[in-house]
Amino acid sequence: MKLNDIGEFGFIKRITPDTIYDDRNVLRAIGDDAAVFTVDHNECIVLTTDLLVERIHFIKESVQGYELGYKSLAVNLSDIAAMGAKPQHAFVSIGIPIETPLEYLDELYRGMKQLAQLYSVNILGGDTTSSKTDLIINVAVTGAAKKNNILYRNTAKAGDAIYCTGFLGDSRAGLDFILQNKNPQHDYEKELLHAHTLPRPHVEEGLFLSNTGAVHSCIDVSDGLSSDLMHIAEESNVGFIVDEKSIPISPQLQQYCDDNALNAIDYALSGGEDYVLVCTVDEKTSLQLEKNFYNTFNRAIYKIGIITHDKNYVMKKRDGSLINIKPGGWDHFA
Amino acid sequence: MKLNDIGEFGFIKRITPDTIYDDRNVLRAIGDDAAVFTVDHNECIVLTTDLLVERIHFIKESVQGYELGYKSLAVNLSDIAAMGAKPQHAFVSIGIPIETPLEYLDELYRGMKQLAQLYSVNILGGDTTSSKTDLIINVAVTGAAKKNNILYRNTAKAGDAIYCTGFLGDSRAGLDFILQNKNPQHDYEKELLHAHTLPRPHVEEGLFLSNTGAVHSCIDVSDGLSSDLMHIAEESNVGFIVDEKSIPISPQLQQYCDDNALNAIDYALSGGEDYVLVCTVDEKTSLQLEKNFYNTFNRAIYKIGIITHDKNYVMKKRDGSLINIKPGGWDHFA
Repeated sequence: MKLNDIGEFGFIKRITPDTIYDDRNVLRAIGDDAAVFTVDHNECIVLTTDLLVERIHFIKESVQGYELGYKSLAVNLSDIAAMGAKPQHAFVSIGIPIETPLEYLDELYRGMKQLAQLYSVNILGGDTTSSKTDLIINVAVTGAAKKNNILYRNTAKAGDAIYCTGFLGDSRAGLDFILQNKNPQHDYEKELLHAHTLPRPHVEEGLFLSNTGAVHSCIDVSDGLSSDLMHIAEESNVGFIVDEKSIPISPQLQQYCDDNALNAIDYALSGGEDYVLVCTVDEKTSLQLEKNFYNTFNRAIYKIGIITHDKNYVMKKRDGSLINIKPGGWDHFA
Repeated sequence: MKLNDIGEFGFIKRITPDTIYDDRNVLRAIGDDAAVFTVDHNECIVLTTDLLVERIHFIKESVQGYELGYKSLAVNLSDIAAMGAKPQHAFVSIGIPIETPLEYLDELYRGMKQLAQLYSVNILGGDTTSSKTDLIINVAVTGAAKKNNILYRNTAKAGDAIYCTGFLGDSRAGLDFILQNKNPQHDYEKELLHAHTLPRPHVEEGLFLSNTGAVHSCIDVSDGLSSDLMHIAEESNVGFIVDEKSIPISPQLQQYCDDNALNAIDYALSGGEDYVLVCTVDEKTSLQLEKNFYNTFNRAIYKIGIITHDKNYVMKKRDGSLINIKPGGWDHFA
């Protein structure tokens, strides 16, 4: 049997047994956006880590150092946000091919530090080493939260309304410019590229959702809306119906898709790397949530579907018909 | 300017500015075996992370999966031990070339989990991804300690006695067999190889030292005794005299060096990867420490020198003459 026979999630299942030897202060282990452990009966540490490898996650020649540094921290802040925690400390391990220009590395750390400063996150440590071929960056970030404020992905309830804190699909459209080696010409194209290279982690939104006390489950959209909704559904033992006409598409993505005869919904469902939050809340509290979100952020939170008892993953099309949706996200070993 | 002009420690100095934005709960940032932050006024989290890259830290063809998994966790447990903390949770990021045999990965996780179980350390999370060329493993480990029990490296005092919790140089001798592609024949050779491939992190020793309340500073020997003593001295603004005849050489290293006309002291001073602890204690408490250590572990702790006011790094040779010693450890970018 080989790695690509079992896939990334098969591999994770394979390595998960026998990983917990003392569960007294463990609230969440492998299987969420971050792990959670308690320090006293009430205070929790949330910890997430992401490994970025050249030629897998990025092509050094097509990403600027600043953007690479920014994004390698941003994806971790997004995981902390999805847990409803406040990010605190970052730990950066870097493996550097010896010929890498120092200027590139300076820019990388500048991007990381500017984002860290924005959220008062300290870079507290890490490891520096060389690498023969590829640039390697592993960032780990800790966050703090009260035990009762943490948002998990395995606690969605049938009947919950599904919400999303921002536009979907922009990042994947931005990636088109990189993959096709095209420079964006129009402002709306630049915005799409920007959504891919410098995504804003929804840290404030995560803290807001956590503080409402009404959110049942939460995840950040890294793999793609359909895949990430499936993570929630699978782990919560429920299904979902997502409403095509309610999926928030930005004006810039709509224009890009119109100009190039593309389907914006495909980008939104399967694109990934949006780093907005998707959460589920009791239907009864949903109007209040919409109002409070608007009052806090001066923009809407988008209701995109409902959680169902049955375990089907369904999209209601514009014409009212229902179709099953399949994971469109990324499997590193598939 | 290039990376190899400034070296690893120059690079770390370059990236350290502007990394702390909120120091209210930070006890130690970049510059020790691990970072330390408080959760309440008394409880601390200690966090360390190590990145291992194929063809830099290991040659996949000459290390078994079990050993690689074991050691990638062991080096982190050693860092936690050097802080006087109790290791608790591990986070494993892995980047895997797609053709890697699953059996190798199973063995890797088996080695890691067996060591984790030995110290009741949970593997709480991580990241799994692919890699084009090299196998990449980043392990982060958290530990817990009371604020007053943490052992730093920058707090050695002039007049302190320097101690070491085990033999030095065995690991480097074991590496000889790997580098020369030789199979160890005699038992003592096998023990040396074992010291390199499956080093025992001195976790209990670290907790013991921390609980004495008498230890002023501590570090684990990863770079090599001379380099690691220099880390303590430089950060504490002191010097040291290490006594050649007191450096603990194992019978197996002595025999290996006798058989091959090698100098055991060179292996001990510059070898590295011993993962024993070196600490400094008030000279007045040193006899008590030796007695308690012996009563606890049924073996000796070795007094190897003293901390001095002047900032010289000196070895007293067997004939009584004093020589300056130079760093013999590893710089990844030099």
